[in-house]
Amino acid sequence: MAGSTYGNLFTISTWGESHGKALGVVVDGCPAGISLCEEDIQIYLNRRKPGQSDFSTKRNEADAVQILSGVFEGKTTGTPISMVVFNEDQHSKDYGDIATCYRPGHADYSFDAKYGFRDYRGGGRSSGRETIGRVAAGAIAAKVLGTLGIELTAYTRSVGTNTINYDNFDKSEIMKNSLYMPDKACAEKTATYLKDIMKDLDSIGSSVECVITGVPAGVGEPVFDKLDALLARGLMSIGAVKAVEIGDGTLVSQALGSNNNDSFIIKDGKVAKATNHSGGILGGMSDGSDILVRASFKPTPSIYKEQHTVNSSMEETDIAIKGRHDPIIGPRAVVVVESMCAITLLDLLMINATSKIDNLLKIYK
Amino acid sequence: MAGSTYGNLFTISTWGESHGKALGVVVDGCPAGISLCEEDIQIYLNRRKPGQSDFSTKRNEADAVQILSGVFEGKTTGTPISMVVFNEDQHSKDYGDIATCYRPGHADYSFDAKYGFRDYRGGGRSSGRETIGRVAAGAIAAKVLGTLGIELTAYTRSVGTNTINYDNFDKSEIMKNSLYMPDKACAEKTATYLKDIMKDLDSIGSSVECVITGVPAGVGEPVFDKLDALLARGLMSIGAVKAVEIGDGTLVSQALGSNNNDSFIIKDGKVAKATNHSGGILGGMSDGSDILVRASFKPTPSIYKEQHTVNSSMEETDIAIKGRHDPIIGPRAVVVVESMCAITLLDLLMINATSKIDNLLKIYK
Amino acid sequence: MAGSTYGNLFTISTWGESHGKALGVVVDGCPAGISLCEEDIQIYLNRRKPGQSDFSTKRNEADAVQILSGVFEGKTTGTPISMVVFNEDQHSKDYGDIATCYRPGHADYSFDAKYGFRDYRGGGRSSGRETIGRVAAGAIAAKVLGTLGIELTAYTRSVGTNTINYDNFDKSEIMKNSLYMPDKACAEKTATYLKDIMKDLDSIGSSVECVITGVPAGVGEPVFDKLDALLARGLMSIGAVKAVEIGDGTLVSQALGSNNNDSFIIKDGKVAKATNHSGGILGGMSDGSDILVRASFKPTPSIYKEQHTVNSSMEETDIAIKGRHDPIIGPRAVVVVESMCAITLLDLLMINATSKIDNLLKIYK
Amino acid sequence: MAGSTYGNLFTISTWGESHGKALGVVVDGCPAGISLCEEDIQIYLNRRKPGQSDFSTKRNEADAVQILSGVFEGKTTGTPISMVVFNEDQHSKDYGDIATCYRPGHADYSFDAKYGFRDYRGGGRSSGRETIGRVAAGAIAAKVLGTLGIELTAYTRSVGTNTINYDNFDKSEIMKNSLYMPDKACAEKTATYLKDIMKDLDSIGSSVECVITGVPAGVGEPVFDKLDALLARGLMSIGAVKAVEIGDGTLVSQALGSNNNDSFIIKDGKVAKATNHSGGILGGMSDGSDILVRASFKPTPSIYKEQHTVNSSMEETDIAIKGRHDPIIGPRAVVVVESMCAITLLDLLMINATSKIDNLLKIYK
Repeated sequence: MAGSTYGNLFTISTWGESHGKALGVVVDGCPAGISLCEEDIQIYLNRRKPGQSDFSTKRNEADAVQILSGVFEGKTTGTPISMVVFNEDQHSKDYGDIATCYRPGHADYSFDAKYGFRDYRGGGRSSGRETIGRVAAGAIAAKVLGTLGIELTAYTRSVGTNTINYDNFDKSEIMKNSLYMPDKACAEKTATYLKDIMKDLDSIGSSVECVITGVPAGVGEPVFDKLDALLARGLMSIGAVKAVEIGDGTLVSQALGSNNNDSFIIKDGKVAKATNHSGGILGGMSDGSDILVRASFKPTPSIYKEQHTVNSSMEETDIAIKGRHDPIIGPRAVVVVESMCAITLLDLLMINATSKIDNLLKIYK
Repeated sequence: MAGSTYGNLFTISTWGESHGKALGVVVDGCPAGISLCEEDIQIYLNRRKPGQSDFSTKRNEADAVQILSGVFEGKTTGTPISMVVFNEDQHSKDYGDIATCYRPGHADYSFDAKYGFRDYRGGGRSSGRETIGRVAAGAIAAKVLGTLGIELTAYTRSVGTNTINYDNFDKSEIMKNSLYMPDKACAEKTATYLKDIMKDLDSIGSSVECVITGVPAGVGEPVFDKLDALLARGLMSIGAVKAVEIGDGTLVSQALGSNNNDSFIIKDGKVAKATNHSGGILGGMSDGSDILVRASFKPTPSIYKEQHTVNSSMEETDIAIKGRHDPIIGPRAVVVVESMCAITLLDLLMINATSKIDNLLKIYK
Repeated sequence: MAGSTYGNLFTISTWGESHGKALGVVVDGCPAGISLCEEDIQIYLNRRKPGQSDFSTKRNEADAVQILSGVFEGKTTGTPISMVVFNEDQHSKDYGDIATCYRPGHADYSFDAKYGFRDYRGGGRSSGRETIGRVAAGAIAAKVLGTLGIELTAYTRSVGTNTINYDNFDKSEIMKNSLYMPDKACAEKTATYLKDIMKDLDSIGSSVECVITGVPAGVGEPVFDKLDALLARGLMSIGAVKAVEIGDGTLVSQALGSNNNDSFIIKDGKVAKATNHSGGILGGMSDGSDILVRASFKPTPSIYKEQHTVNSSMEETDIAIKGRHDPIIGPRAVVVVESMCAITLLDLLMINATSKIDNLLKIYK
Repeated sequence: MAGSTYGNLFTISTWGESHGKALGVVVDGCPAGISLCEEDIQIYLNRRKPGQSDFSTKRNEADAVQILSGVFEGKTTGTPISMVVFNEDQHSKDYGDIATCYRPGHADYSFDAKYGFRDYRGGGRSSGRETIGRVAAGAIAAKVLGTLGIELTAYTRSVGTNTINYDNFDKSEIMKNSLYMPDKACAEKTATYLKDIMKDLDSIGSSVECVITGVPAGVGEPVFDKLDALLARGLMSIGAVKAVEIGDGTLVSQALGSNNNDSFIIKDGKVAKATNHSGGILGGMSDGSDILVRASFKPTPSIYKEQHTVNSSMEETDIAIKGRHDPIIGPRAVVVVESMCAITLLDLLMINATSKIDNLLKIYK
């Protein structure tokens, strides 16, 4: 695959550059019969919209989505759903150093090496705006999953060394603070911390978590298309993610088996687990517990501080990156993480629907 | 995809159960003209063979590989290479509790939920023996990459809290100790530590790292098929892996941008980097530095200690797992990690060969 | 795959309904460095535009294409090229019978059976307008192939019983008559013939051929991705095509081996063939001769004559289909056939670039 | 995809050369819970086994299949089913001219052009024996389809100018004559005809048809993964096929719309069709009628007659191909056609199971 299409049965194909005419996505394989309107999508897109807080780029875009196909009389038809967001704030300007310098921590050099040249305007295809298509598609996937009783909740877990206190976890708090943290006190402390980072003309890393409830056991394929393997791919494909963890994540490397294993128990007449170190996935298949996945984001590579680098004429030089950039990536990426989880899970859930002959008999007989 | 095929141009399709007749793999898309014999494969398989140390299952298998197709007069023909390892040590026996109980930390329950029943003999398809096909294919991928000047080195980074000291890193040491650690002192200390774990009838987690040198810049596709995204999928698809990290991994979530960004420099007349926090990947494409990737393995779920669980009749019960099992997964998985990295990288390197018209002109004009 | 994406390395994802807001395509994997502008695409789209002759629907659409991404400073960047054509002539109207009746020869009933309901406006996704995306993508594929010295020529071979005389074959004539026939006399005769069909309120079948020159030997994969197999899929996926033939096509079923085999000869110091019954493909790979492929189109299913059918209330009824419809499909599909051939061939040509280690060494060493 | 894997959810990966150690297939994605044993497969393989009639190569092979994985306690487990047939009759011999000459009508030259060299023994990967894997997989697909009430019947329709008389169609006759014709008189006449061809040291073309009954309406995806498009690919991927037709096939190019359209009617309280020119497929989706598909096979390219050709030293030469070869391909390919139809249909039927939310609700709620 050429790399801009994701998924097997529920597929998304994204396109668009930061400063091109538009960005968008084609969603194919969405089951027919789901109620869908532009507002369903817009709610998701608004969660990643710029200019909403002190910690988000001042780029001012409505990011208004249009659905161009695949919905008829308010319902998905089963055919491709094409969605587009036109870029508004693409005033012609002097890109100066950006056009010729390889910004540290950015894809500039890799792009030139791969393609021979690059669209240097605003990062081109590697801009954070590339995620618009993911989020628009994620809104649809989440809606289909909701119909099946599955719910996703993503949030910022940490910013630098400020980590939420799980004892204070309050889901309703997530949408109330601009950092999307489920711990009010931590969010407030972090806001102050971030202002200091910004004063230093610097940026900081962060981590985002997603919890998925209501997933039936057995979703995911046992070898290469394990649920955790595809979640890992989906999340690591988000720009700036450098680590993906399931359940206890890296901590398992120091755990004892007797502690890491989750005992099975009977609860409400069903198989359940006493603990959830596995993060809801065993053998690559959902085990009926909550799915827990976490992504670590590197600090925003664009910083105002001067940095040493190289230009395309092979000369060493210094660069201070002007323009608009967030001091942190995680909070605006919360909805991207949730979207990639929704898309990945729905695809595997659809594949799983054909895993045994009894399922096919339910549909065809 | 049904989940047992991996890759796009260089694909592998694995098959086989722990206690079935055989396990194997079909490698498709291997470039023609590579010298290949069974010994090339066997060397890799021997690195994961059981029964070689105190810390490896006593199951005694030669795991002798046969190449059944795709090689003619000592060279790959470009057609599928089918490789098989017949199971020898599959003496009929009483599987007792295993057949009916859901072992904690295992895929038993997920399998039943998905398919309605399962091959309970030795874990069936979710056994560590499933990786035989991956390693056989990895040996081929590594050989192709070697022809292009690319080299992979994987090793055990930590066992429990015993982590190698990078100041003592000695590549030649890796193959000399049964833990595949590149730090002799650490390996010796860990051996003692592991014996204590075993006395406690318990198991312990570990981590494995892989370094890849010689990768040209630009390999990897910019959005969903990012090099790091596909490495994450490949490694997370190995049984027991719960986290994948690239470069600084989870540490980036606490890093400052000014520190995490790697400065570009000119070295020997070429673009290079002063540091390598990125782990050799920027924007999902190789940046010309060494690729560094890390996987965290949970402790072996099979332990001799008694555990609480549920059986398929929905009754709670206790189980102590008999038979042969390793106290640790990482060391025998070192070659699996290396194999998955090789397969993933080669596939993307082949895709990258068609990224610009100049490349096609080199071949067709 | 969910069915609206085509190709492996060079992929196209089409979307849009006849009477929706727009139709379009995302082309992914196009090699970087190809000069491209909207006019390149428009020239192709104009060849399938309605309203250009007596034999084409009066629907009046400019079908003006916009490139929304993937091109920078006049060249392809290697990232997805999104193209869109907005529907203009979608005046709200009473669809009457169409909404409830299953039109004979149409996909109405199949759609309802599959999805539970359908977008009945103008055929929805199964409209001929669906091919806009294919043609826009085909224009790009043809341009890449042209850079490599490969040229495609498609034309109408027959309409009903009127078949071109190959002795009169004049390539320059194709674009001069509204039937896209390479035989002026035949085109004139056919025009008269068609007017009679139209007077009878009926429609007629046709066939289209495509010749591809300059294809190097060896393109196509030996088993399931044979060049002819994928051409067959590509052409049969065009609405109304009921047969695909390569070279001598169905005639081979009556041929003797001694006659059907093409002798190899040496010509201009190269391997060539004395005849070309094979249509340029042997063993699923190009053999260096011209590729010849042919598609048979059924008559337009929409006819003004009254027909017997069933409605969605399960009642038998009669229907006479009003509105605008062509009496014949082939001529406007000529450019669609050419496009699908170009897309299919380019994809396999790119895959073939990685078939031997010598090719990879040319690029990476 | 590298070309030896076929299908999306129900996938097959075939491997093996004519004179290598073995040939086989890995079937992935087969629904769990289907009864399966080696005899189920062997019955299908025996239909293509050599040495069974005057019109089949004298190569004497039992072609005994072994199932190596994916079946437990007599039922499919949902994991990959690996099947292998070891080559017996591969006595070392002098391949003489074959090793250096490009046989007319064969893939020899294309292979050399693509890969730089080839496995010249018995055609290598382009041998008819490559179909062993397809047939073994087809037996499984047919068994799954049978569970759902779907039945496939393939047969030889014509040999040279000898075509069956549909008025004499007798399904029970197919397995009784060595030509697999459903018309006893035609089979007898054809046998005599074929002996004359053989006396002339020549070969002859043929055609094979497959009828599929019991397919529910709606199977197939509306654009590129149309049921007819994928059947066309599947059949055209069989060596020697040069044309694929659905329903009336090439005849539609001469038909009137008023005649070609099939009227819908109500029959037994269900939607049905008065005629079946469409071959059971409308808009790329099954329409509930019998599916009818036809493939045209070229004459066997290996003939005893002397032919003119070129060798790999670029010299013109003559060649008379010795050894064992059938005078005709169709009859032994009947079961291959049936197999490819079964595999293709099952895959699309599984995909179709997820086409609407109501289906997912049936399984997950």
